[in-house]
Amino acid sequence: MLTRCGISKILIFDYDKVELANMNRLFYRPEQKGMTKVLAAKQTLEDINPDTEIVPYAFSITSTENWQDFVDALTKNGGVQPNSSVDLLLCCVDNFQARLTVNYACLLHNIPWMESGVAENAVSGHIQLLLPGVTPCYECCPPLVVATGMPEAKREGVCAASLPTTMGIVAGFMAQNTLKYLLNFGTVSEYVGYDAMRDHFPSITIKANPECRNETCVQRQQEYAARRAAMGDAAHPLHQANKQREEREAKERAAARAKATASAAEWGIVIEARGKEDLAVHAPQPEGVEAVSVEYAYSSGAGNAAEHAQEEFVMTDGGESLEALMAKMKALQH
Amino acid sequence: MLTRCGISKILIFDYDKVELANMNRLFYRPEQKGMTKVLAAKQTLEDINPDTEIVPYAFSITSTENWQDFVDALTKNGGVQPNSSVDLLLCCVDNFQARLTVNYACLLHNIPWMESGVAENAVSGHIQLLLPGVTPCYECCPPLVVATGMPEAKREGVCAASLPTTMGIVAGFMAQNTLKYLLNFGTVSEYVGYDAMRDHFPSITIKANPECRNETCVQRQQEYAARRAAMGDAAHPLHQANKQREEREAKERAAARAKATASAAEWGIVIEARGKEDLAVHAPQPEGVEAVSVEYAYSSGAGNAAEHAQEEFVMTDGGESLEALMAKMKALQH
Repeated sequence: MLTRCGISKILIFDYDKVELANMNRLFYRPEQKGMTKVLAAKQTLEDINPDTEIVPYAFSITSTENWQDFVDALTKNGGVQPNSSVDLLLCCVDNFQARLTVNYACLLHNIPWMESGVAENAVSGHIQLLLPGVTPCYECCPPLVVATGMPEAKREGVCAASLPTTMGIVAGFMAQNTLKYLLNFGTVSEYVGYDAMRDHFPSITIKANPECRNETCVQRQQEYAARRAAMGDAAHPLHQANKQREEREAKERAAARAKATASAAEWGIVIEARGKEDLAVHAPQPEGVEAVSVEYAYSSGAGNAAEHAQEEFVMTDGGESLEALMAKMKALQH
Repeated sequence: MLTRCGISKILIFDYDKVELANMNRLFYRPEQKGMTKVLAAKQTLEDINPDTEIVPYAFSITSTENWQDFVDALTKNGGVQPNSSVDLLLCCVDNFQARLTVNYACLLHNIPWMESGVAENAVSGHIQLLLPGVTPCYECCPPLVVATGMPEAKREGVCAASLPTTMGIVAGFMAQNTLKYLLNFGTVSEYVGYDAMRDHFPSITIKANPECRNETCVQRQQEYAARRAAMGDAAHPLHQANKQREEREAKERAAARAKATASAAEWGIVIEARGKEDLAVHAPQPEGVEAVSVEYAYSSGAGNAAEHAQEEFVMTDGGESLEALMAKMKALQH
């Protein structure tokens, strides 16, 4: 997804080889069996968009001997410019040791990252944004398995279930949040959960733990507290982006409001209430018709002024019947 | 996703050809430019899983001259058995005319289907399940554009924005709901919305409109009402599946409860409360530790009895310290 969106450079770390058992969920193809996963991924991703640079690293990030290579790759070969760091690290691993390694590297080098996971039952998952010192680190509120210091959290011999749907949706959340983070649109989520059995999407907010057992995390928290004391809200890494986004959205809303008001006047529609939280534009409805148009509430296919106004206005009719309005609309088409 | 899951047979209808402009969001590759979309899709899907039969139909379903071919394909060449119908139709089109065609074919031949859409602004979408006579049909609560009878709802000359993330997530919802529908697990959703800007997932329930302007829909509703009068809840197409699922889940819960109770007794953990709605298993926490493990609440990686018990129990410690429990857990590892 990120390749299709034209991200300039993607580093991939994985020590594993493609197996046929991966076909049920990952984007490999049977003929890639036996290739390293990073090279197979590079092949597929470059087929999709030759303009994205894919840098493969076929080693395990958790081996002590690879630590320096891992950190150098992130900080010295990470960015598009020479000797620059990655903008964001996406963690899509299946064990706690790798997550702890990523957590430590990101804390040490102040790299924002996103953690993701799908449960062994294949029907729930989550993504989480981790900004060193600002949001909790991965050790701030450790899973029990981490707290107990067990060496390997992925249970040996357990063949976990997996579904391409759950994985695809969680990957989609991660890529979407990445786009929002890098391109400054929408609200970047700190946590999105997904329970496939009930299509339930829990959201959780957690604060960084000042007594985190990771000393680098505590140090980053103190640095952030100092920046906050000096700069206030502006200390937050997303502050500038949020501010720019809010200003742009306010402009768009003002323009849409003006357009909608003009259009409403022309159509004899009265604006009854306004609310940022209300997504729906209620079409005028005669008595006895209960349902509001679902399509219309989500898509902007029909309206023009409605497009940006839909988060801002709740409209109702000024006495004209649905039939009269439809007749007007039809007339407008010819 | 469905191909990776091993669906036996997939019919694909599309009259279009692959363009470079599709690369930003669809799963085609640049070298497939100029191929019909159905053949390019067949090629890619068969590469993924040669065991899935992909049947391409490169024609427009909205042309009157193709109507019979479309209906014959669905009803006579749809199933794995000769002369049988598709189990489910997935509608992934970008205009209302095609949706209305699908709606009519499905009403006429009693075919369950799922509708999907992504808004022109690329940051919201939805899926919806349509069971003829049981849930609303596509004309029961028409978008304004349908109500007004405009001939072509996709605005000419509008180059809609699109994001592979939003499309991937909506496609993931659709494929997941398809698996739940076909394989009888979880709750099949009637509607899942997605607002990417805020990671908000609205859900809507709408009833079939007894005054639907589509006569076949009204007829199907009456047939369903008659079946309900005779059979009660058993008339619902998902009734048997729901019942089987609930029985299976009840058995799993009872087994997990027995296992968890035994395990809790062994560990000195007291069960304080039970609640189907509570997803989290609260790990024993000494005073001063606020955060509950996020990972632990979602994944079942650490626990064993916890796996199925997590929807059923809220546990708390029976006096033992976290350290003592950790020591026990560590001892268990060796």
